[in-house]
Amino acid sequence: RINPDRLWDSLMEMAKIGPGVAGGNNRQTLTDADGEGRHLFKKWCEDAGMAVGVDKMGTMFARREGTDPSLPPVYVGSHLDTQPTGGKYDGVLGVLGGLEVIRTLNDLDIRTKHPIVVTNWTNEEGTRFAPAMLASGVFAGEHDLEWAYDRKDAKGLRFGDELERIGWKGEEEVGGRPMKAFFELHIEQGPILEDEGIDIGVVTHGQGLWWLQVTLTGKDAHTGSTPMPKRRNAGLGMARVTELVHEVAMDYQPDAVGAVGHVEVYPNSRNVIPGKVVFTIDIRTPDAQVLAEMRARIEEGIATICEAMDIGFEVEAVGHFEPVTFDETCVKAVRDAAERLGYTHRNIVSGAGHDACWISRLAPTSMIFCPCVDGLSHNEAEEISKEWAGAGADVLFHAVVETAEI
Amino acid sequence: RINPDRLWDSLMEMAKIGPGVAGGNNRQTLTDADGEGRHLFKKWCEDAGMAVGVDKMGTMFARREGTDPSLPPVYVGSHLDTQPTGGKYDGVLGVLGGLEVIRTLNDLDIRTKHPIVVTNWTNEEGTRFAPAMLASGVFAGEHDLEWAYDRKDAKGLRFGDELERIGWKGEEEVGGRPMKAFFELHIEQGPILEDEGIDIGVVTHGQGLWWLQVTLTGKDAHTGSTPMPKRRNAGLGMARVTELVHEVAMDYQPDAVGAVGHVEVYPNSRNVIPGKVVFTIDIRTPDAQVLAEMRARIEEGIATICEAMDIGFEVEAVGHFEPVTFDETCVKAVRDAAERLGYTHRNIVSGAGHDACWISRLAPTSMIFCPCVDGLSHNEAEEISKEWAGAGADVLFHAVVETAEI
Ligand SMILES: NC(=O)NCCC(=O)O
Ligand SMILES: NC(=O)NCCC(=O)O
Repeated sequence: RINPDRLWDSLMEMAKIGPGVAGGNNRQTLTDADGEGRHLFKKWCEDAGMAVGVDKMGTMFARREGTDPSLPPVYVGSHLDTQPTGGKYDGVLGVLGGLEVIRTLNDLDIRTKHPIVVTNWTNEEGTRFAPAMLASGVFAGEHDLEWAYDRKDAKGLRFGDELERIGWKGEEEVGGRPMKAFFELHIEQGPILEDEGIDIGVVTHGQGLWWLQVTLTGKDAHTGSTPMPKRRNAGLGMARVTELVHEVAMDYQPDAVGAVGHVEVYPNSRNVIPGKVVFTIDIRTPDAQVLAEMRARIEEGIATICEAMDIGFEVEAVGHFEPVTFDETCVKAVRDAAERLGYTHRNIVSGAGHDACWISRLAPTSMIFCPCVDGLSHNEAEEISKEWAGAGADVLFHAVVETAEI
Repeated sequence: RINPDRLWDSLMEMAKIGPGVAGGNNRQTLTDADGEGRHLFKKWCEDAGMAVGVDKMGTMFARREGTDPSLPPVYVGSHLDTQPTGGKYDGVLGVLGGLEVIRTLNDLDIRTKHPIVVTNWTNEEGTRFAPAMLASGVFAGEHDLEWAYDRKDAKGLRFGDELERIGWKGEEEVGGRPMKAFFELHIEQGPILEDEGIDIGVVTHGQGLWWLQVTLTGKDAHTGSTPMPKRRNAGLGMARVTELVHEVAMDYQPDAVGAVGHVEVYPNSRNVIPGKVVFTIDIRTPDAQVLAEMRARIEEGIATICEAMDIGFEVEAVGHFEPVTFDETCVKAVRDAAERLGYTHRNIVSGAGHDACWISRLAPTSMIFCPCVDGLSHNEAEEISKEWAGAGADVLFHAVVETAEI
């Protein structure tokens, strides 16, 4: 078994870097705080006897040698970046859970045949630079490196420049690493495990996603002196599209979700009818066919709404992944580990996207979920118990060691 | 007749200060650009032989002495501050039109019995610091000086501190100036005069207004992993309230308007359901009873929407004025001047709020409108012709001189 106290202490130590305003974290990707978190993780890895490499996307790879270094490593990890008002566990548990696997192997003086590599994937959250899971996407060959470097934040800063600025642009080419398997431990970010009182989610599938960035162009004009029929109110258009996204998601739920989380209004003045709005629609479902249907209905609806209001529109896909089916052998390794350790478990679909979704294209992959309080995530109040974290890391340890072979 | 070329040149000269991004202006109140515009106006006033005083709200009073200095002055003016993406004429025409009245009197070597004072009221637009018409409101005794100093912009900067920072906090107590009358020339900011091909709007009334700042509190949570029925989506609540405001305004139009122009979403991340939104509703009508009804319907609607969604709400009035009826004598002076000069004219209701609305509580007041292209204002593309500006300033000149007596 792993050491839950040590794991918890490291989680709390990392959470001191980039504190939020309400007990959580704001350690957004490629900020100074992200750089600081990386240094701490690197130090911990080196203290545990690992060599840390960094690729051109800033992804960190901490390697513990196997007894047969020629064998492909087993990978384990997640991400250290957070939402602007994020929790202490989303991503961090998977990275420090991986570190805890290594520390436990060191304690027990066990050497696996296959090397084990603990990873911290850059920009999983996608808030500062869309899309989410950017570095794992480049690693999996889904995105081009130069395209990723060109992603811009709200201030217009380039991903590539910011990566260089914080000093974490590595030399290693992205991708092309042989991989026996990849395991990612993560909090569920939803309410199912807690509601059912279950310790471990054996993740069999992941939802597919579209992020549709919509720009509506009306005409900014005076709120007081512009007659109602003369208005081309882009803000009202956004309100109608927001309602439409909700309606479409409600038609397919419980197997689909949809919302608008990101909104910009121009010129954003109390007495100016918005002339332009930019916002992002997030729709998800585990069913590829439903995902395509939802997108089509929303795009048609946007056209209908905007034509009726004489508003211009543009829809750009700024994030996408198809639904994922995780590898049977890896899923079984997770289920067997939970069973062996006496934890209650159930199969579960991931509502969120994860680096594991992209890596599953390259290598056998699966995920382990532990519960989180009230299913709450992407909120500073995100909470888990030390026991939940410990159970998840125990299962991770067993699945990884079994796959890396002793 | 005034000199339309000189007036136009001054308008173009002022428009060089605080240029916008699309041909208009961003000379928001108490910015460095506002300070620069004030210096230029002061220089022009002094060149025209006037003495310039500044009160504790930063309002500028440029005085041309009358032959009987003991008589109460006739006031004329408007504001030099602009929207963030504002036009070159909104407000500026009224201030520089006032200056043109003085320059013309100088040309003609005419002395009026009553002194004439040209004013630049601070923070008419209300974008950076709500409410609009802040300094004229303090002047009219509607707001307390210290309360005005405490208004904060989006960055949390205080009005009082910013006024001091740009060096325009004067020594003079606010208000208490004897006033024979006040005249304000302004662009219509609506389409009526241009549509009907009329030179001059004789402004008889002004619409009343409520600015209702609404805060909705839901719960920020993951867009992917939070089941639809568990969501408390404050952004969706805002969409529904935006639609409600539109519906209520449509029920009363053409004699009412309503919109949401200002929106803030928290945490504003693509994959976070908005946990909090703050936005401002702007409703207006010339009918006091309708204004109260609209407000009541909207407040009830907000409660209904939010209760159904389990969302908390707070509504704060951040701007208000009752409908205004301008002074009969002043209105007649404007109408007579237009008639005498051979300009086509019609009675009109002001859709926008103006400093004249507050000053009308203190002294006989009226306004003169000139057309603007396509009724467009609060937009950098705001446009008028030199002829329209000249006609408005001619009428202003005649109304002022008649009232100030020769
Ligand atoms: N796990 C997680 O929150 N990932 C962020 C990407 C997304 O699913 O929106
Ligand atoms: N005239 C003008 O645009 N004033 C700003 C105050 C308002 O919103 O009416």
